Amino acid sequence: MTDTAPLSGGSLLLAWQLKDKNVLIVGGGDVASGRIESVLVADAHVTLISPSAGLHPLTKRFIERYPERITYHDRTFGGVADLERADMVLTAIDDVEKSREICALARARRIPINVADIPPSCDFYFGSQIRSGPLQVMISTNGQSPKLANIIRKQIEQSLPENAGEAVEKVGVLRSKLRERAPGVGGELGKRRMRWMIDVCTNWEMEDLALLDEDMMAKLLDDGWEKNQVPGLEEVGGSKRRPSASTHKTASVWLLSAAAFSAGAACTVAVLLARRH
Amino acid sequence: MTDTAPLSGGSLLLAWQLKDKNVLIVGGGDVASGRIESVLVADAHVTLISPSAGLHPLTKRFIERYPERITYHDRTFGGVADLERADMVLTAIDDVEKSREICALARARRIPINVADIPPSCDFYFGSQIRSGPLQVMISTNGQSPKLANIIRKQIEQSLPENAGEAVEKVGVLRSKLRERAPGVGGELGKRRMRWMIDVCTNWEMEDLALLDEDMMAKLLDDGWEKNQVPGLEEVGGSKRRPSASTHKTASVWLLSAAAFSAGAACTVAVLLARRH
Repeated sequence: MTDTAPLSGGSLLLAWQLKDKNVLIVGGGDVASGRIESVLVADAHVTLISPSAGLHPLTKRFIERYPERITYHDRTFGGVADLERADMVLTAIDDVEKSREICALARARRIPINVADIPPSCDFYFGSQIRSGPLQVMISTNGQSPKLANIIRKQIEQSLPENAGEAVEKVGVLRSKLRERAPGVGGELGKRRMRWMIDVCTNWEMEDLALLDEDMMAKLLDDGWEKNQVPGLEEVGGSKRRPSASTHKTASVWLLSAAAFSAGAACTVAVLLARRH
Repeated sequence: MTDTAPLSGGSLLLAWQLKDKNVLIVGGGDVASGRIESVLVADAHVTLISPSAGLHPLTKRFIERYPERITYHDRTFGGVADLERADMVLTAIDDVEKSREICALARARRIPINVADIPPSCDFYFGSQIRSGPLQVMISTNGQSPKLANIIRKQIEQSLPENAGEAVEKVGVLRSKLRERAPGVGGELGKRRMRWMIDVCTNWEMEDLALLDEDMMAKLLDDGWEKNQVPGLEEVGGSKRRPSASTHKTASVWLLSAAAFSAGAACTVAVLLARRH
């Protein structure tokens, strides 16, 4: 708690769990297609209600590609029966009155709802997002500036280590292998496991973590975990990837300096030669 | 929709709205104090249930500092009556059985719940977060590696433009002033408004947006919006801040080059002088 930042004006940012949950999406246009993608990422089952005439090409592609994950109804919203099994409702239709009606029905049943473009009818908002494997980042400006949210998203995307998503995935696998090798919940062992994983994440570069394969993980656990130490990439049989962008940047600074050094030398020679004549 | 990224294994990242909602927090320790901060940021009213013996110093500070926003009960969870007015429940206690009991009660009432450290009892997870005014960023590794989430959070924090939060805030104010000047929902005017705001956000540097004050905003609207153009910072009476960190970085590269140039010259002089003797 810092004394300067006022504790207000924000949202509660959450990673909502939708595995095996039912999400009702009303509408099939541009916005709806984005919603479908977002909830499929979260392993939800989608029930989509929208007349086929209004389907966005992307929405059509989703329906065709994931028939087992999307139940599609070619019609408009049919009333409260459509909410029967819904764990979440997302609407993205142009009809404001209909949207508000769906919102009232959902709220009466305490089903979380987002109505596109009608903030008071939203229990939650979506933000600008980045996804790379199991790594997800959301940027919210709390409605102040969607454009800046987008600009900031792009900046963050560029600044993220190239293999951050891969690194997260590999560390997740390593972690579950460690849990198999040293099972049990909590206690001293749990603490030691957590400390060792933190040491690995701290000592290794993100791009090196992304290189971990089955053999290297086995060696890391044998030579690292068992001996309570953290061997490096080469020590477990890995080798560095080609220089990364940031290495390039450093290299170019030194090249520039070397060029300047040579230029300085050359100019001095020229000046001195000129003086001689 | 990219063909490479599988649509699964993630969460649905959300900005949950808690303004004037009631959040029940059971527990008062370290984790609970973090939860209290997060929900106060979202303008919730907190009901906190925890024996005073177990209160973390930060929790105590919150209770003392925000008596009108936190209703504190010095006792353990008392059963279903405690859920009466709750719109969300967060528990952070060591008692696993009690936690599961609270979870079952909340779910029977469709109240969203997070039970610290028991993933199956969570409708949502929290992630690593950054907050700067109305700008909020969440990093989730979907449980794969909390430590990497933290490392990535720090990297993002460092890469964010210094005044990003301020810029978002100022753009929000500018946007509402524009809406006052050219009111109405949707239609051609709505589109023009959106386009002009996008142009401002795209043409101006983030650190310049952060400098906007009342007078500059008025001039930006008079000379910009009214004439359908986007004047720059100086044109609306502003002046650049002292060089930013990135300018420093560029400057130091040139300083390094100049030093190298001088070194090259000096070495050559030395060599030539040595040769003369």
